[in-house]
Amino acid sequence: MSGNSFGQLFRLTSYGESHGAGLGGVIDGCPAGLSISEEEIQQELDRRRPGQGIASTARKESDTVHLLSGVFEGKTTGTAIGFHIANEDQRSRDYSTIQNVFRPGHADFGYDAKFGFRDYRGGGRSSGRETVSRVVGGAVAQAVLDQYGISVMAYTREIGGIEAELADLDGVQERPYFAACDDVIPLWEERIKEIMAQGDTLGGIVEIVVTGVPAGLGEPVFDKLDARLAYALMGVGAVKGVEIGSGFEAARSLGSMNNDPMTAEGFASNSAGGILGGISSGQSIVARVAIKPIPSIAQEQQTVTRDGEETTIRIGGRHDICAIPRVNPVLRAMTRLCLADMLLLQRRNISL
Amino acid sequence: MSGNSFGQLFRLTSYGESHGAGLGGVIDGCPAGLSISEEEIQQELDRRRPGQGIASTARKESDTVHLLSGVFEGKTTGTAIGFHIANEDQRSRDYSTIQNVFRPGHADFGYDAKFGFRDYRGGGRSSGRETVSRVVGGAVAQAVLDQYGISVMAYTREIGGIEAELADLDGVQERPYFAACDDVIPLWEERIKEIMAQGDTLGGIVEIVVTGVPAGLGEPVFDKLDARLAYALMGVGAVKGVEIGSGFEAARSLGSMNNDPMTAEGFASNSAGGILGGISSGQSIVARVAIKPIPSIAQEQQTVTRDGEETTIRIGGRHDICAIPRVNPVLRAMTRLCLADMLLLQRRNISL
Amino acid sequence: MSGNSFGQLFRLTSYGESHGAGLGGVIDGCPAGLSISEEEIQQELDRRRPGQGIASTARKESDTVHLLSGVFEGKTTGTAIGFHIANEDQRSRDYSTIQNVFRPGHADFGYDAKFGFRDYRGGGRSSGRETVSRVVGGAVAQAVLDQYGISVMAYTREIGGIEAELADLDGVQERPYFAACDDVIPLWEERIKEIMAQGDTLGGIVEIVVTGVPAGLGEPVFDKLDARLAYALMGVGAVKGVEIGSGFEAARSLGSMNNDPMTAEGFASNSAGGILGGISSGQSIVARVAIKPIPSIAQEQQTVTRDGEETTIRIGGRHDICAIPRVNPVLRAMTRLCLADMLLLQRRNISL
Amino acid sequence: MSGNSFGQLFRLTSYGESHGAGLGGVIDGCPAGLSISEEEIQQELDRRRPGQGIASTARKESDTVHLLSGVFEGKTTGTAIGFHIANEDQRSRDYSTIQNVFRPGHADFGYDAKFGFRDYRGGGRSSGRETVSRVVGGAVAQAVLDQYGISVMAYTREIGGIEAELADLDGVQERPYFAACDDVIPLWEERIKEIMAQGDTLGGIVEIVVTGVPAGLGEPVFDKLDARLAYALMGVGAVKGVEIGSGFEAARSLGSMNNDPMTAEGFASNSAGGILGGISSGQSIVARVAIKPIPSIAQEQQTVTRDGEETTIRIGGRHDICAIPRVNPVLRAMTRLCLADMLLLQRRNISL
Repeated sequence: MSGNSFGQLFRLTSYGESHGAGLGGVIDGCPAGLSISEEEIQQELDRRRPGQGIASTARKESDTVHLLSGVFEGKTTGTAIGFHIANEDQRSRDYSTIQNVFRPGHADFGYDAKFGFRDYRGGGRSSGRETVSRVVGGAVAQAVLDQYGISVMAYTREIGGIEAELADLDGVQERPYFAACDDVIPLWEERIKEIMAQGDTLGGIVEIVVTGVPAGLGEPVFDKLDARLAYALMGVGAVKGVEIGSGFEAARSLGSMNNDPMTAEGFASNSAGGILGGISSGQSIVARVAIKPIPSIAQEQQTVTRDGEETTIRIGGRHDICAIPRVNPVLRAMTRLCLADMLLLQRRNISL
Repeated sequence: MSGNSFGQLFRLTSYGESHGAGLGGVIDGCPAGLSISEEEIQQELDRRRPGQGIASTARKESDTVHLLSGVFEGKTTGTAIGFHIANEDQRSRDYSTIQNVFRPGHADFGYDAKFGFRDYRGGGRSSGRETVSRVVGGAVAQAVLDQYGISVMAYTREIGGIEAELADLDGVQERPYFAACDDVIPLWEERIKEIMAQGDTLGGIVEIVVTGVPAGLGEPVFDKLDARLAYALMGVGAVKGVEIGSGFEAARSLGSMNNDPMTAEGFASNSAGGILGGISSGQSIVARVAIKPIPSIAQEQQTVTRDGEETTIRIGGRHDICAIPRVNPVLRAMTRLCLADMLLLQRRNISL
Repeated sequence: MSGNSFGQLFRLTSYGESHGAGLGGVIDGCPAGLSISEEEIQQELDRRRPGQGIASTARKESDTVHLLSGVFEGKTTGTAIGFHIANEDQRSRDYSTIQNVFRPGHADFGYDAKFGFRDYRGGGRSSGRETVSRVVGGAVAQAVLDQYGISVMAYTREIGGIEAELADLDGVQERPYFAACDDVIPLWEERIKEIMAQGDTLGGIVEIVVTGVPAGLGEPVFDKLDARLAYALMGVGAVKGVEIGSGFEAARSLGSMNNDPMTAEGFASNSAGGILGGISSGQSIVARVAIKPIPSIAQEQQTVTRDGEETTIRIGGRHDICAIPRVNPVLRAMTRLCLADMLLLQRRNISL
Repeated sequence: MSGNSFGQLFRLTSYGESHGAGLGGVIDGCPAGLSISEEEIQQELDRRRPGQGIASTARKESDTVHLLSGVFEGKTTGTAIGFHIANEDQRSRDYSTIQNVFRPGHADFGYDAKFGFRDYRGGGRSSGRETVSRVVGGAVAQAVLDQYGISVMAYTREIGGIEAELADLDGVQERPYFAACDDVIPLWEERIKEIMAQGDTLGGIVEIVVTGVPAGLGEPVFDKLDARLAYALMGVGAVKGVEIGSGFEAARSLGSMNNDPMTAEGFASNSAGGILGGISSGQSIVARVAIKPIPSIAQEQQTVTRDGEETTIRIGGRHDICAIPRVNPVLRAMTRLCLADMLLLQRRNISL
């Protein structure tokens, strides 16, 4: 156990490095009899691939998933679901630049301290490519959520400080940057071009909305629904903050304003973001996630070698300007994994 | 397993309701031979008690901890440490007001949906009193942190939107509200009085700084150090947001600004809050937590009964105006528990 | 986590030493709404106490359980159930004999190697008194089993090599030694008296039969029902062997004899002991457990001191001649805990 | 989580069915920097393959393992180790015989009850082929054991009731049936031929001996070393009993005979099988395992269809006569996995 498993009852265990043979994982605990389609899982993976707006580089990986077990004649069998995604683009490269130099904003230094050495090829296990396994896990988790009619949306609220209105959420999955509205897209593209020209990168904010979660999900003390969700989302690379409902704004609000009154028709507002005392209230669950700018920038940066000598580094090659387009489907996947796990856990509470 | 345990190797399991016989827990996995003093644990518990500034009510609970096992002649034995804190103030009360009415901003509705009924006496398991067990666990966890020279501070940055400067952090533990500086205290007290007069409540922001954490703590994928920390902190009642280092500000920053350059003397800045790629960098770990206003307000609020009929509720009795003074030691405890667990986990990586 | 928790979904975490303040634990994951009676739990504890035939010493502990949380108005609330049993007989004794000498057949040497020192008072955590927490856990677990109509019996098949017939299992709970029949009791008592006169001790075999377990319990690979059961039972002190159904006899049998034919009325025999491929078949579950003789004997034994010097030890005081009467209710409890956990886990597999 | 993971710190999660795409798994928690050779792992897998004496059928699977991650330049990186073994022999077969009929002695009935349907192709997840993943996990676990100089032997003591002497254990890995001595082999072969001619099958007993385990391994209460070992071994298909040291014989022994005296040179005997009070004593660990006869016999057997109608079944094709040759390396692997996990757990107890 070194943190490659997520979930207690619906559990994804993943493996793989960016420049090894491939990536994959095992989904354990999925109930039997759920419909699973390799095509639908592939569709989720395709959403994670580059090409979602100009912020992403064009790489060649086709990211084709292969289900290896646990599904028979289109249904889950209740046994472990193994899957693998081969790395296609494994040609030998020149890593001499980064092999002995710590990249600022990256985990290089910590990996070295932790493991004594590191797989320096493209970040190894710390690469964003690791998230393909999460996306597969999330797509399978959705089969559990489907039993409850739960839908998970993740859309981009902000890139480079420019906020999107919540206009037309229906088209989110097909819209560039998974933007919350159409109007903001040209503004974001302009900003991205400007920053790209400077050899710099941008961050942003993603909002997640989940509908259909029944009231009663979450455990009273440590495993509050928001605690599990914060764990799930903060565990995605580049995430530096998570807030639920009114979030940090709640810290500046008053009790009378922040409480959501109840009426015969239900709650009159949703400051709580669908979670009270760690337990779902039956309202939509709303979370917001802060994504930092990608640390690989084309500008020259001050750093040190593994021997502690000062040097500078300029990270060449084509790199993404903003992580948002790739992170978005991953955040959706983690939300799905978190909810599937909590839903199965809640079943222990049923009476016969 | 329904979420009453925290930690994988250093694990606290807690029990207890606000109006039952008492609260307590079991700490499993504490290494043998560490010095533990019941007095020091009691001191931490005393910090959590009311009386930290005018925002808290004066209750009579002495919160006296009794260690029941696992410590022999002042040292841990390596076996489970049981402890109990008796509820002293258990007199029968009139709960008829809240027995059949859902309090806005509370978990009442979710508990009902989850368990089919609830222990309505003072919130039962959802009461803030539950956190005494966490504080005991955190105090024992500090014995593990002491082995590494790690120190965990939690101070209040903001109450009711009024921010404190980072002036004199040395006196934090003794200062009212665990304020980050002296000057802000009269401003906060004025604001609290004003809000109290309106029958309303306030929230705030707590900042946590950990020094002495060695580089290399945290696991690359799901169990990133920041993910575990977010889980630990978001699992405290009233917390609605968690951010690490520059947090939500990072989302509006540029890569060139947000990256922390490395020099021969170490990192030149700490936007990362001491965590890169989920692994500690050896810098101070910095986290900020948003606390919502206490939902129990003296104003009349719109709500419904368990039968769904609309009604109003006004929550009488003496209630806290702001959760900060009580939550602060709990956040410190959770940070300690999180770190002790990760430190023991990292030991698996040692060579003989 | 150092092995003081049993179970994944219905989880008992225990604490306590034989000569500390007391023993107890936390039961986490018990579903809400089950009827729990402190009297029934106490009745199970009373069965574990000395006085079950002449093989046991008469000690004064009343072993009174106190439920501290998680039960409200006679029903489980779904939150953690804390409980405590005070040690009443804590007077200071003279441990100088055993403080620096390893008792043969005891865990003393291993504890020393493991923890660097040990709580030498009466065995500390390794004492049989630790099992009171298991018995409480088992009694609560029975409330889950009651939902399924499951009944767990544990009766003694053999003491000192003298086998009991399976005659009248109805009276087992009230019969001395929890004997499988009446006729064997005088034979056992005669043998015990004889051995007692020699300052020696006896072992025996306990058989466990569980009726009412639905087919389908257990997980296909590592968490087979028999694997979990073997773990539960072998984790009881003094147990040196566990077998299921025909057990070691199966190793000498033929496939044609050992297979249980199926008929329209069900299985025609039960060599499998109710478990096939790790999954319950719906038949009675049958397990047998080997209990070694109590290592504390009144004869002089060869051993060494903590410094490695040879010496002899004669263990004085009143000690049990045979562990069976006390172990029996513990084995029953562990079986119940194991089954409650697997039943809740199986619920994850339900369709809505 | 449905039982496809073994271990808490050194954790194997496996997937795969006998007639799907292949089998594999993820090893999480392996420390960084250990030498791992794909050739050595393959050698272990080859030992598990058919051809170990006449009791096994000759199948064509080459069982070639592919390491997919977590190993870089011949050393573990500390990240998850993924691996896969393709099924080569997946041609379509006629399963109509067993698709709707429950095979006596098999898990078919339980799977049906559990999951609502089953993957009937060759047993699906319940097939013995599942164990290839365990063998790979065990081979990697040995790299942890190597750090301590621990060696795990598993040899066959008994087939069809004919016992082998403990003569020459050095040649065990190369000897047919992994027999404990040479002399017994012709006797076993004769017995096997005789039984084969009758269309019947045989069971046996495997003994495991582990040398080099330091004193102090195992946890005092539920996670006793023997409890974890019993869980590991009983979780292998066909195992019906596990005993430690003198095992079931201890139940008929006296305390004075069963206690192992200690001398200045160490223990004078090893009735305990190297485990006292659940904690290793530093002596060799000795366990014995009962293997039932293979349930697939060529004789006609009475059974029922899925609709409950009585019928008979005769299981054709080439089947093994005795599971021993294949189970032996699996038992060795499970012992290794169990010990690696406990060793890493014990490291939490170190002082800095």
